Amino acid sequence: MTATLSDEIRSDVEKSGKMVCNCPLPPEIVNNNIGKAPMMPDFYDDLCKEVLEELRLDFSSDFTSDLGQTEREQLSNRFKQFFDHSVYGGGLTRSKLSFAVFKSLNPKAEKSEVKRELSVLMSIELLQAMFLVVDDIMDSGETRRGKPCWHKMPGVGMGALNHALRLQNFVNLLILKTIPDHKNLNIILRTMWETIQTTSDGQELDKVSESSIEFCTFSRYSKIVANKTSRYTFYYPISMALILADKMDHLPEVSTISNALGYYFQAQDDHLDFLDNDEFTGKTSCDIREGKCTWFACKTVEKLQNNPEKLKRFSECYGSNDPNLISEARQIMLDCDLLEEFQNFEKEKVTELKSSISNFPVKEIRPALEFILTKLNGRKK
Amino acid sequence: MTATLSDEIRSDVEKSGKMVCNCPLPPEIVNNNIGKAPMMPDFYDDLCKEVLEELRLDFSSDFTSDLGQTEREQLSNRFKQFFDHSVYGGGLTRSKLSFAVFKSLNPKAEKSEVKRELSVLMSIELLQAMFLVVDDIMDSGETRRGKPCWHKMPGVGMGALNHALRLQNFVNLLILKTIPDHKNLNIILRTMWETIQTTSDGQELDKVSESSIEFCTFSRYSKIVANKTSRYTFYYPISMALILADKMDHLPEVSTISNALGYYFQAQDDHLDFLDNDEFTGKTSCDIREGKCTWFACKTVEKLQNNPEKLKRFSECYGSNDPNLISEARQIMLDCDLLEEFQNFEKEKVTELKSSISNFPVKEIRPALEFILTKLNGRKK
Repeated sequence: MTATLSDEIRSDVEKSGKMVCNCPLPPEIVNNNIGKAPMMPDFYDDLCKEVLEELRLDFSSDFTSDLGQTEREQLSNRFKQFFDHSVYGGGLTRSKLSFAVFKSLNPKAEKSEVKRELSVLMSIELLQAMFLVVDDIMDSGETRRGKPCWHKMPGVGMGALNHALRLQNFVNLLILKTIPDHKNLNIILRTMWETIQTTSDGQELDKVSESSIEFCTFSRYSKIVANKTSRYTFYYPISMALILADKMDHLPEVSTISNALGYYFQAQDDHLDFLDNDEFTGKTSCDIREGKCTWFACKTVEKLQNNPEKLKRFSECYGSNDPNLISEARQIMLDCDLLEEFQNFEKEKVTELKSSISNFPVKEIRPALEFILTKLNGRKK
Repeated sequence: MTATLSDEIRSDVEKSGKMVCNCPLPPEIVNNNIGKAPMMPDFYDDLCKEVLEELRLDFSSDFTSDLGQTEREQLSNRFKQFFDHSVYGGGLTRSKLSFAVFKSLNPKAEKSEVKRELSVLMSIELLQAMFLVVDDIMDSGETRRGKPCWHKMPGVGMGALNHALRLQNFVNLLILKTIPDHKNLNIILRTMWETIQTTSDGQELDKVSESSIEFCTFSRYSKIVANKTSRYTFYYPISMALILADKMDHLPEVSTISNALGYYFQAQDDHLDFLDNDEFTGKTSCDIREGKCTWFACKTVEKLQNNPEKLKRFSECYGSNDPNLISEARQIMLDCDLLEEFQNFEKEKVTELKSSISNFPVKEIRPALEFILTKLNGRKK
């Protein structure tokens, strides 16, 4: 699926106690006066830590039917291990984005008012963990966030699937329990399920597009990205904050800007995979071997349109398991000046995004969108 | 997890167009005057076929975001294959139970009134398919319902997980879309998620109880069964029908009788696995090799309490991968007269269940409960 957004080895919460705005703005962004990332009131930091810990305890102790004490403890310990391994350890960037939007819309909210909402917004981290566990099994992943994938941990194996399943259900129950009387409850639930559905469809499209350069077109690529990445990495965090705050006038525009952000984010991901810098990303992956429809594959096919012989050779090498053919495919791609092409693409994309953000119809959340752009710009993992 | 309830090779719908009551009552039951299984109005048969086909089309064409026509067709074909392989082909016994209860409560309902409700009740078949796909991956299953497991089909592999994920989400969206204004909508949703959560917890308890006879006690066994089997095989179909009909006074009693039915059902499953009759059940499995906490393992441990030497040897053989040790474990179990013990257990259980059913507080649904008992009695798969 997608890589994690800002896959830090340990979460910012654990490292520094800071949830947001602890990344300096890149000079390029500051110089262009795109603005400063929004500052969160101090209590958000503590609240987020509190909320995450409460979710952890709730997840590992919430049993919907009778169990004896021994059974309860045995399961509880196991679920805590799972939570610590799979939910903690991420960059929490999706929930940071969500909180930043929510805070922009509720600048004067008191601590007691926002705690419930933060639980709901934090659910994105649990869904993210669920997706990653399933994704790592589907892709036969070995490492994630610099440590073994959960299914690779001793005594876990395919039991990981059951944990992922439980996590998703826990989120359903959590939302129903946390905001049972919210006027937009059904919209919130539907938004979550449509997001999971869309992401799952994007995964499928990604999968069925593997192993044939026939599918390596930017048209197909944009559809894969819109589904598998944009919806849950950008649309979900932003729209959930808006729906919670009952400000839903501009959801179509949120969708548009989420697609643009997602496209940029996924292309960066493809770039990191192309550079094959496991030491940064903390995960094993190889799009070339899997014959994925990536930005780099699409660009190669586009650039080889007038060179049918080389295109044919590329088709033979791309998606192969043979290390020699993989190297040859990569060389063909490098020969197409793809690294330069990507730099140009990035510059254009950032310019476009800055412009879209500064014209975004919900003024209050522009700083939150700028904040996320600064997080993406120049990311190394 | 559990085996399918009545894992017919092709569903009754396909074979005969009959949804329910096509199994003759075992003489034992008839002679004991426990009553006749309820007859469904004819239109239920056609409606069920209609509803299942609509779900199939909806599942394979419902995309929550934009896709091009080619992408849409590609995914649609894949999802249809998945649905045909994994949802069709089961015995539909859970939904039959659910329909029978619903019909008992609404004997005079018109076709147009019940169709929406049937979609919701039929969702149990989709959840069942989801559980089986995940279960087969977790257990490294090879066959199910007499054909290869879905993840063993060409070109599927671990992509099966994505299909299972999509199926569960589809059910969420389906219920929200089908009965958006039902006064018990939130209770219906919560019941579904709690069922999935409980089943998932039961799975986990089953998993952590493997490979050590320390956990082979009837106390642990009853907790595993109550969670992994009873809740979704009996409580879910019965309670959903009651909640849909807005008759929720006796849900605690539904829980009690579901636990009793589930215990009987799971013990039968363990029996079939112990007999190792792949040709009947259509699935590969071996509880002895996996060291599962089954009725048979618990009974063996109970009977060997005064024979510490043999118990020690059983402990060494049970849960082994070595075919010789597996045979030895099975022989120790046979020496404990387990097949006779099981027959006695079955007789007692059926008598108990008959009595519970004839005293069940919601009189109207007693025939539906009798119907399910006749389906269980003497089942071979």
